[in-house]
Amino acid sequence: MTKNLQLNSEGKLKHFLTIEGLDRQLLIDILDLAESFVGMSDQRIKKVPLLRGKSIVNLFFENSTRTRTTFELAANRLSADVLSMSIATSSTSKGESLLDTIRNLEAMYVDMFVVRHAISGAAHFIAQHSAPHISVINAGDGQHAHPTQAMLDMFTIRQIKKDFSKLRVAIVGDILHSRVARSDILALNALGVAEVRVIAPKTLLPTKVETLGVNVSHNLVDGLQDIDVIIMLRLQKERMSAALLPSESEYFKCFGLTEQRLKYAKPDAMVMHPGPINRGVEIESKVADGSQSVILNQVSNGIAVRMAIMAMAMQKQGGV
Amino acid sequence: MTKNLQLNSEGKLKHFLTIEGLDRQLLIDILDLAESFVGMSDQRIKKVPLLRGKSIVNLFFENSTRTRTTFELAANRLSADVLSMSIATSSTSKGESLLDTIRNLEAMYVDMFVVRHAISGAAHFIAQHSAPHISVINAGDGQHAHPTQAMLDMFTIRQIKKDFSKLRVAIVGDILHSRVARSDILALNALGVAEVRVIAPKTLLPTKVETLGVNVSHNLVDGLQDIDVIIMLRLQKERMSAALLPSESEYFKCFGLTEQRLKYAKPDAMVMHPGPINRGVEIESKVADGSQSVILNQVSNGIAVRMAIMAMAMQKQGGV
Amino acid sequence: MTKNLQLNSEGKLKHFLTIEGLDRQLLIDILDLAESFVGMSDQRIKKVPLLRGKSIVNLFFENSTRTRTTFELAANRLSADVLSMSIATSSTSKGESLLDTIRNLEAMYVDMFVVRHAISGAAHFIAQHSAPHISVINAGDGQHAHPTQAMLDMFTIRQIKKDFSKLRVAIVGDILHSRVARSDILALNALGVAEVRVIAPKTLLPTKVETLGVNVSHNLVDGLQDIDVIIMLRLQKERMSAALLPSESEYFKCFGLTEQRLKYAKPDAMVMHPGPINRGVEIESKVADGSQSVILNQVSNGIAVRMAIMAMAMQKQGGV
Repeated sequence: MTKNLQLNSEGKLKHFLTIEGLDRQLLIDILDLAESFVGMSDQRIKKVPLLRGKSIVNLFFENSTRTRTTFELAANRLSADVLSMSIATSSTSKGESLLDTIRNLEAMYVDMFVVRHAISGAAHFIAQHSAPHISVINAGDGQHAHPTQAMLDMFTIRQIKKDFSKLRVAIVGDILHSRVARSDILALNALGVAEVRVIAPKTLLPTKVETLGVNVSHNLVDGLQDIDVIIMLRLQKERMSAALLPSESEYFKCFGLTEQRLKYAKPDAMVMHPGPINRGVEIESKVADGSQSVILNQVSNGIAVRMAIMAMAMQKQGGV
Repeated sequence: MTKNLQLNSEGKLKHFLTIEGLDRQLLIDILDLAESFVGMSDQRIKKVPLLRGKSIVNLFFENSTRTRTTFELAANRLSADVLSMSIATSSTSKGESLLDTIRNLEAMYVDMFVVRHAISGAAHFIAQHSAPHISVINAGDGQHAHPTQAMLDMFTIRQIKKDFSKLRVAIVGDILHSRVARSDILALNALGVAEVRVIAPKTLLPTKVETLGVNVSHNLVDGLQDIDVIIMLRLQKERMSAALLPSESEYFKCFGLTEQRLKYAKPDAMVMHPGPINRGVEIESKVADGSQSVILNQVSNGIAVRMAIMAMAMQKQGGV
Repeated sequence: MTKNLQLNSEGKLKHFLTIEGLDRQLLIDILDLAESFVGMSDQRIKKVPLLRGKSIVNLFFENSTRTRTTFELAANRLSADVLSMSIATSSTSKGESLLDTIRNLEAMYVDMFVVRHAISGAAHFIAQHSAPHISVINAGDGQHAHPTQAMLDMFTIRQIKKDFSKLRVAIVGDILHSRVARSDILALNALGVAEVRVIAPKTLLPTKVETLGVNVSHNLVDGLQDIDVIIMLRLQKERMSAALLPSESEYFKCFGLTEQRLKYAKPDAMVMHPGPINRGVEIESKVADGSQSVILNQVSNGIAVRMAIMAMAMQKQGGV
């Protein structure tokens, strides 16, 4: 086994930066721990004292109210103290370097950084340069990875489909720029699904995308054949101006998920989306709010899954 | 009894959106519960575990540091977890619709929304479209209602005057645009005061104001005759430019509460104001800081009253 | 003993506004209490219930993420509830006066204000006008005082040097504009060091600086002779434009602390800096990150020292 920055010397989770290099058992352990947090009633998650007395700092260099909120709520549920800092990348406070900021925070007896950054690799960089007592959780870095999103997607799939081994999963949309797609592909393959299929126009696919372990389709109707799980991606409006796409309505005409097109997938196919959704751009409201949609389940599961990841990463300190 | 969105099937408080439709006993229950939170010493409110493990989200679409602070402090005192979100109305995050924001938050196992919004009816709208496990508290919506302010006003009046039935209460100022005035009038009438009198220039009164159950005066000196309680309203400076008023000094000359004018009310009349006060516009500093003023008592009582309302609204979940 | 606003009638700490007027024993009590919070392992400070149920409001009229963060973390560690308010000095909310803001907050059963303000004397002003149950902690006011920084500096010095009485301490840089320098000089003299020496160009020294109880040097190499502790000050870039200094590189040439120059101090001299550091302006990276630097220890000690000060100031209420 090659050395993995994410694991401590005993092979236990210390940082959670990417799905890459994590084995199937560890992913299943996360899903199992998350499951233990979901109560009998699905409207409540009990507060547990697992991280009482721990200090978690949300370091959001890129603005994301929704993701920050789920991490705050998850930390609250674990009884940790949370402190959220929005940091403009351009001007770290008083011109201090990122590393000086990190070193100062870790000197303040902080236990964990939850990092969101527009630059790919930022969370790795911070993990590499943090003191040994710090855990780093990647809450999304550039176009690289969004591993907690991938894990909540896996949790939601398992909740409904139980077994990964027979599943054919389609990821539809802007694969090229999507950190969610990248992390989902890694997680689905690690958990041993039958097939991961990406469906996108050529301009929104990375070169040599097949090397990621996926099949490719450029046509939504064809691509949905035999599919059990559909993961729609959010279309970033700025792609239009970048000339990668003609227009929103043109995109919807070809790759928007409508009730009509959904019929080409298996009848019990589940529809997922990391949110926030662009209604009428990548997905029709009827589908987003329809009976096959599990989009809000994903949001709910995000709390339990993030609790599990934070709790496991803290084990190294005897925190759990 | 007509169906009231605010009450559950057993007639218990679920949302707190407006005083309208709430009966006298329920208002008295709120006042009694609030009273139980006020300790022996008036400088302390003990922390109680009533809402331990509950998550409250302050959804402030309109900025109000003061009201947000009182709700945060009240939630802290109830041992709840609080998360405050300032949301610019113009641009809900990443173009997401208000309803999608609400649905996402409730999917995160949140228990209560405290809503402040510039549009009348916003809190009702959110309550109508929220999941069954959510309670919504209106912290002020447009010119419609500010029911927690009304309840703290009632608490402050009862604290000093004991019995509502003999009281004559004057509300002075911009009745037309004031959500505080509307909620106070409803609460005072529900609690059975002898008289509610509004005192204002014609341009700052709603048409057919008498239908709200008030007497009308356009003259401050005449209007204060026999009055036990004076509720001054804050004058919004933007009314001047809207040509509803000539100038601040002109307004003060006619409707500003001075020591001199205060003498026309009963000698033990109490002076109230929802704050923040415009010294020298609607009220003279000598009066605001004088012995008949209970303006800071109102602020203190706001904590206990908001605790009571939040705790009662949460009962439906077996939270109390 | 002259009346000191900071002490209650029994001579116990009530506010913490400046080092001035506090006697040696009280400073030592603070250091001793802080020491009790530092655990066995230096990566953890245990959470203690000393201020459970207390509400602390951070009133930051001047932006400072770092100082605000240390106060929040310290309050968390004491189990207090914290509420941070960033207040633009120019426009206190809705035009309310500072005093009205203060009076409203204290009416909300708040126990402590932590105040940061660009105007010298702001914390004193607030302490003078606060209700008797409120404690005020000065987190930096204009060019006047930064007493919690001074105490964490003293803590760091004592941690390494044990005994103050033999120490020669140099403070290097912009003494004229530095609240840290002013508070450090007072604390060092109160604790009885052998010598405080200030090293700065004439333009960055107050007139009659000797009356503060310091020796003066205008040359870094000469000034470092026999020095045990070097406190570097942050150079504010705006001094350049104010024509007090020619340029950053010119300043570094004369007053920047380099490895080379550090040799002129005692071989075991410790290097301190209140942060954030300007690498290559007042200090070379090799020195800032070198073995004699205790800059990050200062940050760590800031949590324990602020905990101690907050806990002691709250004793007056029977809070400890």
